[in-house]
Amino acid sequence: MTLQRERGTDLTIFSPRASAMAHHIGDEATSMAWTRACNDLIARVCELYPQNFVGVCQLPQSPGAPLAHSVRELERCVNELGFIGCNLNPDPSGGHWTSPPLTDRHWYPLYEKMAELDVPAMVHVSSSCNPNFHATGAHYINADTTAFMQFLTSDLFRDFPTLRFVIPHGGGAIPYHWGRYRGLAQDMKRPPLGELLLNNVFFDTCVYHQPGIDLLATVIPVKNIIFGSEMVGAVRGVDPETGHNYDDTKRYIDALPLGDADKRKIFSENAARVYPRLARKLAEAAP
Amino acid sequence: MTLQRERGTDLTIFSPRASAMAHHIGDEATSMAWTRACNDLIARVCELYPQNFVGVCQLPQSPGAPLAHSVRELERCVNELGFIGCNLNPDPSGGHWTSPPLTDRHWYPLYEKMAELDVPAMVHVSSSCNPNFHATGAHYINADTTAFMQFLTSDLFRDFPTLRFVIPHGGGAIPYHWGRYRGLAQDMKRPPLGELLLNNVFFDTCVYHQPGIDLLATVIPVKNIIFGSEMVGAVRGVDPETGHNYDDTKRYIDALPLGDADKRKIFSENAARVYPRLARKLAEAAP
Repeated sequence: MTLQRERGTDLTIFSPRASAMAHHIGDEATSMAWTRACNDLIARVCELYPQNFVGVCQLPQSPGAPLAHSVRELERCVNELGFIGCNLNPDPSGGHWTSPPLTDRHWYPLYEKMAELDVPAMVHVSSSCNPNFHATGAHYINADTTAFMQFLTSDLFRDFPTLRFVIPHGGGAIPYHWGRYRGLAQDMKRPPLGELLLNNVFFDTCVYHQPGIDLLATVIPVKNIIFGSEMVGAVRGVDPETGHNYDDTKRYIDALPLGDADKRKIFSENAARVYPRLARKLAEAAP
Repeated sequence: MTLQRERGTDLTIFSPRASAMAHHIGDEATSMAWTRACNDLIARVCELYPQNFVGVCQLPQSPGAPLAHSVRELERCVNELGFIGCNLNPDPSGGHWTSPPLTDRHWYPLYEKMAELDVPAMVHVSSSCNPNFHATGAHYINADTTAFMQFLTSDLFRDFPTLRFVIPHGGGAIPYHWGRYRGLAQDMKRPPLGELLLNNVFFDTCVYHQPGIDLLATVIPVKNIIFGSEMVGAVRGVDPETGHNYDDTKRYIDALPLGDADKRKIFSENAARVYPRLARKLAEAAP
């Protein structure tokens, strides 16, 4: 909470650590027990400090397992623990990518529950047990890029028009290659990206230098950008070029040539729209 | 050659199509036969049109196979066919990532030959047979990011100080997340990226919109940027926002706020430095 104060955070959407979800370890029962323990701890923190934290859950995923446990755990976390969303791991194998793409019907039972509960998912892998992929330097970013391209090539959002995903780390490689993705979609005779994806896909601001955030805000509509800092997360330490923490992302947003109304969207209003249960909590808590 | 004239290309570094290298198909013998056929065709084109094309080879890689064939084919292409470099596939499995990282000693026989012949490699995967990874939209970009992070976490360039790699597609996600990579290196007590990697790693300009190229030129030193257009490659068609082909990357470089000397480096001088055999060919051909 000291860090929240120092960085200017009012409320943190708090989930179990992505890198510790570790869906590749053990089996369904292991993941179920570990997931419940993590989610219960998050719930406890949110209950103790309701002004500071609101919960998002991990799901008990396992390579090759059906989604029944995940559906039940999402329901428990939302209805019983007051959570407002979930983390969804597109690669429970931890870097071997053995599950079907996120657009496969394999995932539909979870999407039906997400739609019913009106909660979004952050697409986030866990640690990597493939020596090719450094977890925070490659696996995370690759997963972001991979998920977006899966969405681009599918009709998932025709089947689930209200489904919403947040892609972390500023959308992986996507904004940097926005022309590539516009061109690929065009070549495949897909609708323009705005129409195809941007009612359903959102990007956080976990990009740790000003030129990256500048690019993000240049190519991605403001309505699709949700403040995030990953604090305390993958990149700790002070950037010698600025004298501030790499992950002190509020400074980069503050420096954008945008008006106050747009910055308010990025800092809070978009989150309240994408996580409607957050908006409801805030309305209830208002004096 | 019409396209070269239209786009303002004098000379193209010409390799077999990356997506058709298909190292995951068949076995070592299949890959050897296909690779020789492709390289011989490239050599034929370069022999017919020496003003327009200079050759770069694919290698006969196969999942799990040792690198002996690759070493021999590189030697044949450079010494007998006059090629100036090679494509190196970090994932011959086609999206399953079963080979050791590029920094593993598995690859050292090839690096010894590259160092001896003084030729660079472009790190480029081929097509994907993992349904999670769209080839040009995810697998290519992920491989770029993955390779860079492998280099960042290793001492490969202490073992091979003159080894040089070109990472295509503007370096995957790397420049967009340059702050992240600076921070990760710092956290691991690695040297600054300039010292650690930028004598050995170079990025092309296959980024298909102006904001992406602007970012590339903002964060990556000019000496590490080599003109590329992937023409005719992954992204065909005309960008309705500009009225020009997405992959007409010369226009983006022309529009950069750089002086002529810097642009000359990007368009030709860096390539001549990274591919010394190209420089020698150009010197020999000069009137």
